[in-house]
Amino acid sequence: MQLGMIGLGRMGANMVQRLMAGGHDCVVYDHGRDAVEALVRDGATGASDLADLCARLSAPRAVWIMVPAAAVDQVIDQLRPHLAPGDILIDGGNSHYQEDIRHAESLRDAGIHFVDCGTSGGVWGRERGYCLMIGGDADAVRHLDPIFATLAPGVGDIERTAGRQGAPSTAEQGYLHCGPSGAGHFVKMVHNGIEYALMGAYAEGLNLLKRADIGMGDQTVDAETAPLAHPEHYRYAFNIADIAELWRRGSVVSSWLLDLTAGALQQDPGLEHFSGRVSDSGEGRWTCQAAIDTGTPAPLLTLALYERFASRGDADFANRILSAMRYQFGGHHEKPSD
Amino acid sequence: MQLGMIGLGRMGANMVQRLMAGGHDCVVYDHGRDAVEALVRDGATGASDLADLCARLSAPRAVWIMVPAAAVDQVIDQLRPHLAPGDILIDGGNSHYQEDIRHAESLRDAGIHFVDCGTSGGVWGRERGYCLMIGGDADAVRHLDPIFATLAPGVGDIERTAGRQGAPSTAEQGYLHCGPSGAGHFVKMVHNGIEYALMGAYAEGLNLLKRADIGMGDQTVDAETAPLAHPEHYRYAFNIADIAELWRRGSVVSSWLLDLTAGALQQDPGLEHFSGRVSDSGEGRWTCQAAIDTGTPAPLLTLALYERFASRGDADFANRILSAMRYQFGGHHEKPSD
Amino acid sequence: MQLGMIGLGRMGANMVQRLMAGGHDCVVYDHGRDAVEALVRDGATGASDLADLCARLSAPRAVWIMVPAAAVDQVIDQLRPHLAPGDILIDGGNSHYQEDIRHAESLRDAGIHFVDCGTSGGVWGRERGYCLMIGGDADAVRHLDPIFATLAPGVGDIERTAGRQGAPSTAEQGYLHCGPSGAGHFVKMVHNGIEYALMGAYAEGLNLLKRADIGMGDQTVDAETAPLAHPEHYRYAFNIADIAELWRRGSVVSSWLLDLTAGALQQDPGLEHFSGRVSDSGEGRWTCQAAIDTGTPAPLLTLALYERFASRGDADFANRILSAMRYQFGGHHEKPSD
Amino acid sequence: MQLGMIGLGRMGANMVQRLMAGGHDCVVYDHGRDAVEALVRDGATGASDLADLCARLSAPRAVWIMVPAAAVDQVIDQLRPHLAPGDILIDGGNSHYQEDIRHAESLRDAGIHFVDCGTSGGVWGRERGYCLMIGGDADAVRHLDPIFATLAPGVGDIERTAGRQGAPSTAEQGYLHCGPSGAGHFVKMVHNGIEYALMGAYAEGLNLLKRADIGMGDQTVDAETAPLAHPEHYRYAFNIADIAELWRRGSVVSSWLLDLTAGALQQDPGLEHFSGRVSDSGEGRWTCQAAIDTGTPAPLLTLALYERFASRGDADFANRILSAMRYQFGGHHEKPSD
Repeated sequence: MQLGMIGLGRMGANMVQRLMAGGHDCVVYDHGRDAVEALVRDGATGASDLADLCARLSAPRAVWIMVPAAAVDQVIDQLRPHLAPGDILIDGGNSHYQEDIRHAESLRDAGIHFVDCGTSGGVWGRERGYCLMIGGDADAVRHLDPIFATLAPGVGDIERTAGRQGAPSTAEQGYLHCGPSGAGHFVKMVHNGIEYALMGAYAEGLNLLKRADIGMGDQTVDAETAPLAHPEHYRYAFNIADIAELWRRGSVVSSWLLDLTAGALQQDPGLEHFSGRVSDSGEGRWTCQAAIDTGTPAPLLTLALYERFASRGDADFANRILSAMRYQFGGHHEKPSD
Repeated sequence: MQLGMIGLGRMGANMVQRLMAGGHDCVVYDHGRDAVEALVRDGATGASDLADLCARLSAPRAVWIMVPAAAVDQVIDQLRPHLAPGDILIDGGNSHYQEDIRHAESLRDAGIHFVDCGTSGGVWGRERGYCLMIGGDADAVRHLDPIFATLAPGVGDIERTAGRQGAPSTAEQGYLHCGPSGAGHFVKMVHNGIEYALMGAYAEGLNLLKRADIGMGDQTVDAETAPLAHPEHYRYAFNIADIAELWRRGSVVSSWLLDLTAGALQQDPGLEHFSGRVSDSGEGRWTCQAAIDTGTPAPLLTLALYERFASRGDADFANRILSAMRYQFGGHHEKPSD
Repeated sequence: MQLGMIGLGRMGANMVQRLMAGGHDCVVYDHGRDAVEALVRDGATGASDLADLCARLSAPRAVWIMVPAAAVDQVIDQLRPHLAPGDILIDGGNSHYQEDIRHAESLRDAGIHFVDCGTSGGVWGRERGYCLMIGGDADAVRHLDPIFATLAPGVGDIERTAGRQGAPSTAEQGYLHCGPSGAGHFVKMVHNGIEYALMGAYAEGLNLLKRADIGMGDQTVDAETAPLAHPEHYRYAFNIADIAELWRRGSVVSSWLLDLTAGALQQDPGLEHFSGRVSDSGEGRWTCQAAIDTGTPAPLLTLALYERFASRGDADFANRILSAMRYQFGGHHEKPSD
Repeated sequence: MQLGMIGLGRMGANMVQRLMAGGHDCVVYDHGRDAVEALVRDGATGASDLADLCARLSAPRAVWIMVPAAAVDQVIDQLRPHLAPGDILIDGGNSHYQEDIRHAESLRDAGIHFVDCGTSGGVWGRERGYCLMIGGDADAVRHLDPIFATLAPGVGDIERTAGRQGAPSTAEQGYLHCGPSGAGHFVKMVHNGIEYALMGAYAEGLNLLKRADIGMGDQTVDAETAPLAHPEHYRYAFNIADIAELWRRGSVVSSWLLDLTAGALQQDPGLEHFSGRVSDSGEGRWTCQAAIDTGTPAPLLTLALYERFASRGDADFANRILSAMRYQFGGHHEKPSD
C-alpha cells in the first residue's frame, strides 16, 4: 500500500527501505534534501514539502511521522491543513504516550485518526525487522496492517510458544495493537524501562567478574579502607569477552543484549573506547514516573536509570556531603584517588 | 570416554543421558536404587556404592559429583580412599566457589585433581545442552574436554559474533575453562546473580503494564492515599501474554527468559497458579556478598534478591515500624487492606 | 498581627492556637461549624463563610489556607472576588510546588500575592513549633514575618552551629524564605523525601536486629531454601525497644524520628497494633519525580517509596511472574508460606 | 575502678581522659611512647609493655583493647600469658561480631571473660559521652558497670520516653548489655549500617535541592540528552546551608547528623574542600552481609553502601559496558563530559 514518511533519519530511512523491499509505495519527505534524494534513487517518491507529500498520497492518506519527539507537534500542525477526514497519522518515534492521547483528541473532531507506534529495533531493524507496539482506533490500525506486517520481523525461526495454535497472531509476527491511543508508546516506554535494567544487570555482573582480581595485588591498609578479609578468594583474572560469549549458548541469561555485549567485548575487550558516561533518553524516565504514579514498585528499573545519572557525575554534591559528614563526626579525611 | 556420575537427580540423570547419547560410557551411582536402575536400562553401568563405582572406572578416573552443595563434603570424604593420584573429581553442582578452593587444596597433596563446573541449563539442558563454566588445573580440564564438549550445546544455529575467526573456541560451543579452582563456580554464581536481575526487570515491567489500568475505576480519596493526578493516563487493560510474545521478535529485550515468560503467560495469563512467594537459592546471595567484599556496586543484582526476600514477608517488622512512626509523628492510622 | 485561617483540621486549628498564644488576632473559617466554635471559645473571631472572613480582615489581608491539596483551587476561586490588590494568600498545606507557580501567576495580575509555605511539625507542632519553608515575593514574605516567627519553634535550646554569628537568622529560628513561588513547597517536598528514607533506614536496621535470631530454631532444608551457612552467628534475641532507647544518647544515629520510634516500641514492643501496610502521601512521589526530571540519582529516597508500595501488596503480580519463570526454567514449585 | 587501656589513638586516649575525669584509675599502653606519656602527664599510669600493664592491674583485671580490628588477635595472643582466670578483656574497637564469638570461645577454657563493646561517638565522645553496645557474660558486664556508666553520656537533658518509669535503665543512660558474645558489635554494626543510609538520605535530598536550578540555563538539545520538559519548574537557587540549618528546629528530619551537616555547610557552603570520594569502613558491609544471610530486605542500607563504592569509580567498567551496548544496538556515541 501507499505510505507517506516524514523524517528520514537512520530509523525513518531504513523503514522506507524495508517497506519498499516489501512492495509498498513510499512518498518521503525530510528537511534535508540529500536524505530524500537517496531514497528517490532507490525508488521512493520524493516530496518537496508537507503539502506536496499530502498531495501525492491518495485518500485515505497514511502518513508516518518519524521525527524527534520535540518536533512532532510542529509537524502535525503543518500537516493538518492538508489532511482530510479518514486520513491516518502515525507517530512512530519516541513520543511520550500522554502526547499521543492529546494528539488523538485534538485530531478526532477533524475525523483524522492518530495511531501511535512504539518501534524497537534500532540500527538492526532494516534487516531484522522492527518490533511494533501500536495504539489507537482499531479501524485505523487494521487499515495499516500491511505496513505493520512488512515492518515487523515476522515469525522467523523463533520457536513457537507452547499452547499457541492456529495461524500466527500478529504478536507472533512482531507487531501488536496494544490498546487505545497511547497504548503503543506506553508499552514501548515500559519496554525501554526493562531494557535499561537488563543492560544494567549484565553490566553489574560483568563488572564484578572484572573486579574478581582485587585479591591479587597488595591490599591497602589504612583507616579509610575497609579491609578485604580473604584476598585469596579474589584472585581471578577472567576473560570477560569469552565469558559473555560462553553465556550465549545454553545458559539462562542468553539474550540479544548479551549477543551485542559479546560483540562489543570481542572488538575491544577492555572497552577502552568508552569512558562510561552513559546517556539516557526519555523512556526510562517516563517508565519510572509511571511506576511512581501508579504506586508500582520498580526498584530495578529505577536504579538502572540512577546508575546512568551517577555515571555522568550527577551524584557529585551528594558524595561531597557524605565526605563532609564523615569529617564532621569522625575526623575522617578523604582518601585521594589512586 | 568413561565418566562416573554420583547423584542422579533431575540434573545428574539428564546429563548421563546426554553423555550416553554422545557415545560416552557412564558408571552411575545414587543412594536411590530406582534412579540407578532407570539409567542402567538405558545403557549405563550401575554401581552399588562409591567403592564399587571407583572400582568400575579405569585410571585415571573421572568422577562427576552432582549432589546438593551440603552433601559434597561427605561424598568427597567417602570417595577419597578409593581414588588414586591422577584421578579427577568434578563438582558440577551449586557449590560455593570458596568450597572449591578448599576442596582443591585438600586433595592436591594426594595428587587428585579437583575441577569445579558451574552448570546452567535446568530442566532444558538434556535437549538444549548445558552451559558449562569450569575452574581448575588446565591439564585436568583438558583431559575432560570430550565430556564437556558433549554436555555443552555446541555452536548450534546462533549467529557467530563478529570478529571471531577460525575454528570455534570452546566458549562458542558453550563451555569454558574460566580459571583456577573456584573460577567455574564463581562465574556461575555471577551468572545467577545476573539472572535474578534479568528476571526482576521483566517482572517489574510487566507488573507496571498490569497496573496501567488503575485510572479506570473510582479513585480512593482519603488522607492516607496519594491521589492519582491524572487517572485518564492510566486506562489501559493490556494483554500481558500478547505483549510478552510480541517482544520475542525484533525487540531489544528478547531473551530466553522472555521466551519462558511468554510461555508461562500463555498457559495462565493471570498466573493464578502462583502466590508470588519467590524462593532464592544461594548463588544470588553469594554474588551480592562478593560485590560487597570487592567494593563493586551491584544495586540491581542486590535489589532483585531483596525483592524475593520481601515477597516472602520478611520486611514485615520493618513495615510495622514505618506505620508506627507515621502514627507517632502525624497521628496517621493504617489503612485496612482493600 | 491579624490573620485569616481557612481550614481548621488538626494542623490549622493547632496553628491558630499557637498564633493566638503568641498574641495574634485570628479570623477563622471551616466548613465544619464545630471547629470554628471551638476556636471562638478560645478567643478567635469566627467567620460564617469566605466572604465574611475577608470582610472581617483589614487590608492588606493575610489569609492562610490550610486545606487538602485537592481543595486549594476551589478555595482560591471562592476567595478571589473578596480580595483586593495587596492582599496575601498563603497556602500552608501539602500542595505540589508546581501548583504554587500556577497560583502565583494567576493572581499576579490582580495584585494579589501568593505565598507557599511548607509546614513540618505534625501533631507536635502546636507545642514544639512548626518548621516553615517559604516561597514567594520577598515583600509579602517580609510582611508576614510576625506570623512566621510565632509559628516557628524559635532558637530553643538547640546548640548554635559553629560559625553562625550575630542575631539569629530566621533559619536558626525555624523559618526561611527559600526563594520565589514554589520554593517553599519544593523544599518541603524534598524534606519529606528525606524523611521517608530516614524512616526506612531505621526500619530496615531494626528489622535486621529482630531477625538476628533465625539461627536459634531448626533450619529448613529443602531445594527451595537458601541454607544458612552459620546458624551460630544468628542467635541473638535482641530487645529492640531498649536498643532504640540506647541510641538516643551519644550515638551517631540519634534523631527526632528515633525518639518517636523508641516511644512506639516502648508502648508496644512487638508493634502488634500495626499490620505493616504503609501509606504514602504525595511528597515522597513528587521528590522522586523531581529527581528523575533533573537527572539526580536518588536511590534511597526512591527505594523508601517503593518499600511502601510493596508493603501494600503492589508487587504481587511481579512476584508471581518470578515464580512462574522459576517454574519454567527449573521446574521449581513455590514453597507454601510458613 | 581500675582499668587497663591498650591503644591510645584518638578514641582510646579520649576514653581514658573521660574515665579519669570520672574518678577511675587507668593503666595505659600504646606502642607509641608519646601517647602513653601524654596520658601519664594527665594522671594515668603508664605501662612499658603488655606484661607490665597486666602486672600493674589488680585481679580480677579489666583490660580494654582499643586497636584496629586487624590487630586484635595479636594483642590477645600477647596478653594471654599474663592473664589469670576471672580477668576480663573488652574489645571496644570495630571488630566483626563473629570475631567476638571466636575470641570468647577461645578464652573460655582459661576462665577469661571476653566482652565486646561497640562504641559510637567519634571525636565528640570525650565531651558528649559514648553510646555503648555491649555483649558477653552477664557477670563480667555487671562487673564493668562503673566503667560503662562513666563512658556513657548519662540521661542528659534528653526528654524521657513516655512510658519509661522508675530509675533510668542503662539504655536511658546510653549503655546496654545487648546479649551474649558478639551482641554488642552486632548492634553496633547495624547502627553503622543505619548511619550510612541516614547520611545518604540527607546527601541525596540536598543534592536534589542543589540541582533544582537546572532549568535556569540553556537546555542541551541532542539525541543523547533526555529533554527537560518543564525548565520553568527547576529555577531555584537554594541556599543549602540555610535549609540544613532550618530543618534543625521543629522538622521531622532533625537529627545529630543534620546538625553536623549544617555545620559543614556553614563552613564551606559549596563543600569545595571535598572531592566526593567516600570511604567506607567494614560495618556497613557486614550489615548488608548479615541482611543477606538472614534473608532480610535492606535496600536502603545496601544502596547507601553502593553509592559509596560508586563514588570511588568502582562502577567504571559497568558504565563502559552500558555505553558499549548502546553503541551496539543504537549506534549511540557517548557524549563527552561537559
